[in-house]
Amino acid sequence: MTAKNAFYAQSGGVTAVINASACGVIETARQHKDKIANVYAGRNGIIGALTEDLIDTSSESDAAIAALRYTPSGAFGSCRYKLKSLEANKREYERLIEVFKAHDIGYFFYNGGGDSADTCFKVSQLSETAGFPVQAVHVPKTVDNDLPITDNCPGFGSVAKYIAVSTLEASFDVRSMAKTSTKIFVIEVMGRHAGWIAAAGGLVEDHDIPVLILFPEIELDQERFLAAVKAKVEKHDFCTIVVSEGAKYPDGRFLAEQGTRDAFGHAQLGGAAPVVANMVKDALGYKFHWAVADYLQRAARHLASKTDVDQAYAMGKAAVELALQGHNAIMPTIVRASNAPYRWEVGEAPLSKVANVEKFMPRDFISEDGLGITTACKEYLIPLIQGEDYPPFEKGLPKYVTLKNAPVAKKLGAFEL
Amino acid sequence: MTAKNAFYAQSGGVTAVINASACGVIETARQHKDKIANVYAGRNGIIGALTEDLIDTSSESDAAIAALRYTPSGAFGSCRYKLKSLEANKREYERLIEVFKAHDIGYFFYNGGGDSADTCFKVSQLSETAGFPVQAVHVPKTVDNDLPITDNCPGFGSVAKYIAVSTLEASFDVRSMAKTSTKIFVIEVMGRHAGWIAAAGGLVEDHDIPVLILFPEIELDQERFLAAVKAKVEKHDFCTIVVSEGAKYPDGRFLAEQGTRDAFGHAQLGGAAPVVANMVKDALGYKFHWAVADYLQRAARHLASKTDVDQAYAMGKAAVELALQGHNAIMPTIVRASNAPYRWEVGEAPLSKVANVEKFMPRDFISEDGLGITTACKEYLIPLIQGEDYPPFEKGLPKYVTLKNAPVAKKLGAFEL
Repeated sequence: MTAKNAFYAQSGGVTAVINASACGVIETARQHKDKIANVYAGRNGIIGALTEDLIDTSSESDAAIAALRYTPSGAFGSCRYKLKSLEANKREYERLIEVFKAHDIGYFFYNGGGDSADTCFKVSQLSETAGFPVQAVHVPKTVDNDLPITDNCPGFGSVAKYIAVSTLEASFDVRSMAKTSTKIFVIEVMGRHAGWIAAAGGLVEDHDIPVLILFPEIELDQERFLAAVKAKVEKHDFCTIVVSEGAKYPDGRFLAEQGTRDAFGHAQLGGAAPVVANMVKDALGYKFHWAVADYLQRAARHLASKTDVDQAYAMGKAAVELALQGHNAIMPTIVRASNAPYRWEVGEAPLSKVANVEKFMPRDFISEDGLGITTACKEYLIPLIQGEDYPPFEKGLPKYVTLKNAPVAKKLGAFEL
Repeated sequence: MTAKNAFYAQSGGVTAVINASACGVIETARQHKDKIANVYAGRNGIIGALTEDLIDTSSESDAAIAALRYTPSGAFGSCRYKLKSLEANKREYERLIEVFKAHDIGYFFYNGGGDSADTCFKVSQLSETAGFPVQAVHVPKTVDNDLPITDNCPGFGSVAKYIAVSTLEASFDVRSMAKTSTKIFVIEVMGRHAGWIAAAGGLVEDHDIPVLILFPEIELDQERFLAAVKAKVEKHDFCTIVVSEGAKYPDGRFLAEQGTRDAFGHAQLGGAAPVVANMVKDALGYKFHWAVADYLQRAARHLASKTDVDQAYAMGKAAVELALQGHNAIMPTIVRASNAPYRWEVGEAPLSKVANVEKFMPRDFISEDGLGITTACKEYLIPLIQGEDYPPFEKGLPKYVTLKNAPVAKKLGAFEL
């Protein structure tokens, strides 16, 4: 078997640990030089493959690649760009094959969420549909935690930890101020369709914090919600509210829609927190503060979950190993072996069963009134936020790596996206 | 000298390290039982003194008090409540004396910012004005860093570290996404009148991040600002903007005023970030994300600056020592002895010179165009965010302490606020 090159790309929203997966891919590939000559990364994701804008990761030192493990964001750039079906856009697939041929690419590692799993699956079919031999392996990543089959998704554990810790800290703050000032603290978190991240805020309940959650899965019952807020404030003098960006009115409208859409056609959200805060103020008169964590939550590598970092790395490593074993159209998964003590192992799933399937919060993870989480949910979440894995600091700031990202010499003509 | 009791209270907005000062006060008092019998804390600040709602800190174990050092928020409750002048509200001062007499209070430690320094100063004058012997010492605290004389204020270093780290991490994220998605990231930070916290966001400039800052001290020149954003995006493909909640239009209006005011009559702010984001979008068309850190920034004990924690503790300790030396109407200060290596020592300032004076950013800390910080500013800031001081974690969350807060038996009748 002659050594082929591998293509690796990051796709969709980045996370605190997607670079840990990149680290797993590249370090593992470097241990198998006989089979994987070089790892070429797509600059800005799949766009890098289409425009032949490849990054030569072999020009990075071992130390720089190791530093990816504790560096948030997407070190090679990511993109929001979804390939259409082969029938609808044959030109893009032909271009991919052209680029892969020109650079002797035999392995395709795609690091992303549900939309990206679909792209990866389409690429995996090129052997059959276009007669081009490439092994495509998806490396799971999404803060939304909504990929099927895998017990959880790399990226989620760290954002869950960030939201749980931040909600706890801000709730302590509000509790201090409630006598004469703020009684309501609203924190808006990511999660367009699935409430996994919002659920993590519910973990503060075990620290004596009165908390209510607005999930995307449960349509807002305004009357019930306001009654619950009132009851919490009357009992505890304050209340913390975690609202998912995807929380909706009964008519299906998002609490806050900015009116713009991303490249996948998803509505761009933001600003549910002030809507909820004002709703409470108008009905109950409580003084409020609100926060929108936005990118802070998914970039917060300084507070990453060690479990998450380890799993992100393991998924990158397993992806390469699956490819070397000859697999195609596959994704490594995280399999939960036990809850307490938490044990997990690496499994695998066929991409045909992963692409375009979203995993929502099971109804028995949400409390009966729709405004909290259950014990089963807590047992699921706690292991995922377990452990700290601090980056090194210098002059008070984390010492994150910025790679050289040297380009691979182009061999083909330009390509219009 | 017979031992007297001490009164300690937390005032105004709480911080990640105000409890470290409480720890300093209580631990030091416990070492001088011959002079300070007990430390009684005001439940919810000065309101606890007025309503005779005192907390007996002697019922807390040494371990619980030690845990205050790494617990954010105000462990005894804080309040926004400013005493009027003696002439305007004699009744409140008479009540304070009544409560102090009833509980044998000889020392008054007040932990707060500028407004609180004024209250503390008024209490310090009770010896003269009302013939009641009490030694009042102010323990400096404010994330706004706007107290005069002291080189910096406990609470600021940690919020500065949080904002610098968060801005760095979110900027890495935006940089990854800029090719096809977000080009502008706006983070709103605290600081109503002084831009110290916003300035901390400027530290990311040394990590190759294009950043612009909107300070409260500099009125917004919209044309110049938008031109600067455009230049940054054309050069770097993205731009991070740090906006202070106190940023103003040239006519003096805040970029975002919610229309409500707090107990001190200050306008309650929030929501400058979406205003700035939409301003950029409307003028330049760039896709944006925005975050409002709000309480997260001042509660983030998980990312406290070690320098800040040490100084907060030292201020509490020094306050007790100053009182034991017989001082009144005084505040311990932080004196910078050298920048590199950073060395500081404890100084002192008379409260008459502290109360009601706000320290703004010096103009030579702000770049000429008004949208960034200078080298002098960076040299000032970097030592203050230096060092990490992580709290212990359990089950993935910080193990913060909640005190018993047992009440001291009341001896007096009720008092209406």
